[in-house]
Amino acid sequence: MTTVDTPDTPFAVVDATRLDRNAARLRDHLRGLGVPLRLHVKTSKSVEVAERVHAGGPITVSTLAEAEHFAAAGYRDVLYAVGIDPHKLPRVAALLRRRVTLTVLLDSLAQAEAVARFAQQEDLRVPALVEIDCDGHRGGVAAADPALVQIGRALGDNLAGVLTHAGESYFAYTPEALHESAQNERDVAVAAAEALRSARMSCPVVSVGSTPTAHAATDLSGVTEVRAGNYVFFDLVMAGIGVCDIGDLALSVVVTVIGHRHDKNWVLTDGGWMATSRDRGTQAQAVDQGYGLVADLRGDVIPGLLMTGASQEHGVLSTRNGEPVPELPVGTRLRILPNHACATAAQHERYHVVSGANPAVEATWSRHRGW
Amino acid sequence: MTTVDTPDTPFAVVDATRLDRNAARLRDHLRGLGVPLRLHVKTSKSVEVAERVHAGGPITVSTLAEAEHFAAAGYRDVLYAVGIDPHKLPRVAALLRRRVTLTVLLDSLAQAEAVARFAQQEDLRVPALVEIDCDGHRGGVAAADPALVQIGRALGDNLAGVLTHAGESYFAYTPEALHESAQNERDVAVAAAEALRSARMSCPVVSVGSTPTAHAATDLSGVTEVRAGNYVFFDLVMAGIGVCDIGDLALSVVVTVIGHRHDKNWVLTDGGWMATSRDRGTQAQAVDQGYGLVADLRGDVIPGLLMTGASQEHGVLSTRNGEPVPELPVGTRLRILPNHACATAAQHERYHVVSGANPAVEATWSRHRGW
Repeated sequence: MTTVDTPDTPFAVVDATRLDRNAARLRDHLRGLGVPLRLHVKTSKSVEVAERVHAGGPITVSTLAEAEHFAAAGYRDVLYAVGIDPHKLPRVAALLRRRVTLTVLLDSLAQAEAVARFAQQEDLRVPALVEIDCDGHRGGVAAADPALVQIGRALGDNLAGVLTHAGESYFAYTPEALHESAQNERDVAVAAAEALRSARMSCPVVSVGSTPTAHAATDLSGVTEVRAGNYVFFDLVMAGIGVCDIGDLALSVVVTVIGHRHDKNWVLTDGGWMATSRDRGTQAQAVDQGYGLVADLRGDVIPGLLMTGASQEHGVLSTRNGEPVPELPVGTRLRILPNHACATAAQHERYHVVSGANPAVEATWSRHRGW
Repeated sequence: MTTVDTPDTPFAVVDATRLDRNAARLRDHLRGLGVPLRLHVKTSKSVEVAERVHAGGPITVSTLAEAEHFAAAGYRDVLYAVGIDPHKLPRVAALLRRRVTLTVLLDSLAQAEAVARFAQQEDLRVPALVEIDCDGHRGGVAAADPALVQIGRALGDNLAGVLTHAGESYFAYTPEALHESAQNERDVAVAAAEALRSARMSCPVVSVGSTPTAHAATDLSGVTEVRAGNYVFFDLVMAGIGVCDIGDLALSVVVTVIGHRHDKNWVLTDGGWMATSRDRGTQAQAVDQGYGLVADLRGDVIPGLLMTGASQEHGVLSTRNGEPVPELPVGTRLRILPNHACATAAQHERYHVVSGANPAVEATWSRHRGW
């Protein structure tokens, strides 16, 4: 029997019990609000994870490589939620011709004209959402910007609706701020849809979402789908803004103690940034978790111990307040709970699956990568 | 013909002209000092890169997966330069039995005893270097620590020598500090070798190195090999400490403009942290380069433009001093010069190879990953 003691470290572990609980929580919440989920698969990039939490349902992807990979696994309703580079349209067309509903995203007249021209040349409808900015986080046009109507007109019958993403919700540190972010995300998306409809365009899709706002929303009237991805694993950044507890984190990295620096109160491991990523997402939060919290191999957090340093294949563990590090002989295996699940998962080719503190590895799940 | 305009972005590009120049520079320098190079392949993880700069020569690896991959490609003298986890010894033995000289590293009696016991059980010699600490950067024992002699004795005839790495040289910001770091690295390594020899042990290998000290060293008497890896590509961190110029950076990531936020003076690209890594190694340097400098597709740096923000598949470009961003229409391709070549390269499966400003892609080189 393979257990968490078997494979050489470092390797990624998913706790399926926590994964199932996280999935049920959001599923129940959205069912109560009457809005379907469009799972964002960019976090796990794993068909097995998607099958487990959202079998065959509509998905969001962050790359065309994900779209192609999940389409090959039977996912037929795919939203590519990064502004389209017109150079990539031939791959979009190839998926559409395989009867995958691949929807693209854009926020400029230049992109809309390129999509409409391509669609006409190829005699295809290329469904496109217009990206709306709700909080100044990244791209998108404002709901009240006249450019929205121009873009909608330029798309012609390729226009499928509007999308917004409350990226600033990752910096909302109170339940009130999270709720306000969710309400604003919904309000802006619905206002944008209304702006298109007032200009006599159809706007069937009103897509919102981020892991924080998906959980904080209490009213999604007028919204047709919610996107979330990180919630399947959660991470320390999400725990830091109060969306989950540390005990909900479903992804960790198993590492082995390879040395000690007693003079510096350090434990050295074989898990460096290649295994955890360089993500320091909790650096700006109230509690800086370094490169991650440290748990024993059963998943129980070791109080006060942090991964404070990382080189390529070395991790440095030390204590938050300078108390002596616990006795952890060479060969001891530990689990690192990461800042940012999307970034840490990206460093691995597969997940070893366990349930709670049971050491048995029940399955190995694949992970896709590339563009 | 494939050119840098052909593949969908983001993708990694290596400028072979710069690679060759960087390789020749260190080769000539070390030839002058009379010490052979042991190339660290952790930066490129590419057999094609190793073939080009160091065909068949001795190499350093950061994982056993690298050791196995390069051994399969004909590299027979391999140093695994991360403290050995005894659980990994069966894979070490498998390589030794394939007549690969796989040398391990350790810095504790527990590891030395485990190696000696394993070697005896398997009727193998497992060549081992003792890691010496020269600057408090990470692991290792002090050259004067009596533990060194104990470890050497415990290893018995598995003892192959000593190794040190001046990790703090990455924070040496003047030519004098770099030279001092190199001199100290050499002095400590030689002192450790002498300590073993004084205790009547043989110490044939005296291994030192890091990219900064390899270039700054002027006297390597008593040293038997120099390890360096990053220098094949160099990066903004190395330019920031003066080991190379920006014009020496051989690795970049090609991205495409997908949008603009004129109100924020932002250009948005399809290259986020998945393409560049989260490495912010220049953050603590005199000049913080954000997530990287921006060049045009020929490789010429666009003055004042930086990649200042990154989400998973979005990059944000803006200007250092707030001057307006240049006109860069949707679809424009750019090259991002990274902070840390090892981390950025790790995000990619292959390299597209060009020579200077010539747009032709001459080759595609593979990259290995995993543990």
